[in-house]
Amino acid sequence: MNKRFVSVAVLAAAISTPTVAQMSVEDQIETRQAAYQFASWNMGKIKAQTVDGSAAFDQNQVAAAAKAIAAVANSGMSVLYSRDSANDRAENTRLKPNFFEEPMKVQEIAVSFVREANALQELAAAGDQAAIARQFAKVGETCKACHDNFRAK
Amino acid sequence: MNKRFVSVAVLAAAISTPTVAQMSVEDQIETRQAAYQFASWNMGKIKAQTVDGSAAFDQNQVAAAAKAIAAVANSGMSVLYSRDSANDRAENTRLKPNFFEEPMKVQEIAVSFVREANALQELAAAGDQAAIARQFAKVGETCKACHDNFRAK
Repeated sequence: MNKRFVSVAVLAAAISTPTVAQMSVEDQIETRQAAYQFASWNMGKIKAQTVDGSAAFDQNQVAAAAKAIAAVANSGMSVLYSRDSANDRAENTRLKPNFFEEPMKVQEIAVSFVREANALQELAAAGDQAAIARQFAKVGETCKACHDNFRAK
Repeated sequence: MNKRFVSVAVLAAAISTPTVAQMSVEDQIETRQAAYQFASWNMGKIKAQTVDGSAAFDQNQVAAAAKAIAAVANSGMSVLYSRDSANDRAENTRLKPNFFEEPMKVQEIAVSFVREANALQELAAAGDQAAIARQFAKVGETCKACHDNFRAK
């Protein structure tokens, strides 16, 4: 619950920053896509080393990758989602307008992403490969939840 | 010295991963640009809150931003720099070929980036706004060192 509280606090803090007002819609879209691409690269490293076994397990790398994913989750990305940045008003984005019609659903998924990413960071630091693989899947579920609900095909 | 040793170890570990062999030059370029854009967004938040004063200081946000920058610095980005990804062989990049002719200079700057970003993360967690602003400048110097040496105008 504490982690959940902290997550909500971070999201609330992010929402209160004037940063969004200073960023163009194009910059919001580019920045959020960059953050997710950086997270995806790091998810791929953890998948390769703990799930697929296509790369040798290196705890330093996996721990660093998990920190990167948690850093993205905790970076207050809500400021990068202004109403004008959905795909009905902006280009180069698959964000669906219903993102702004379902704020509680968005927050639920965002808080889950933060919670599961923080848990992955802790497990990666501990180094139990099987536990990391299981938690990796939980983080992936939160990515998929957002894609399924709010990303155009 | 310990932090420096860890930084070098992380870089060495990154160099040993087969990840680069699995990524296209285009993916290497897109991924490293995404990582730096994510870091730049977070640098901007710290600058606004501790240097410019254009946004109210929020320690939670600044600490999260510093973690994001440190996560980028520690993510083993050296695997995203294959020789074919310089601007004499690839498009959509300003990376100059001399990056591959001066490996010790590259490592010196990379290790400095990791060291200063880790120090910023620690100071941001402590919360001394003036100290954070001073360390922010040190991190920025490592960004500039790489741009001045290896990024085309």
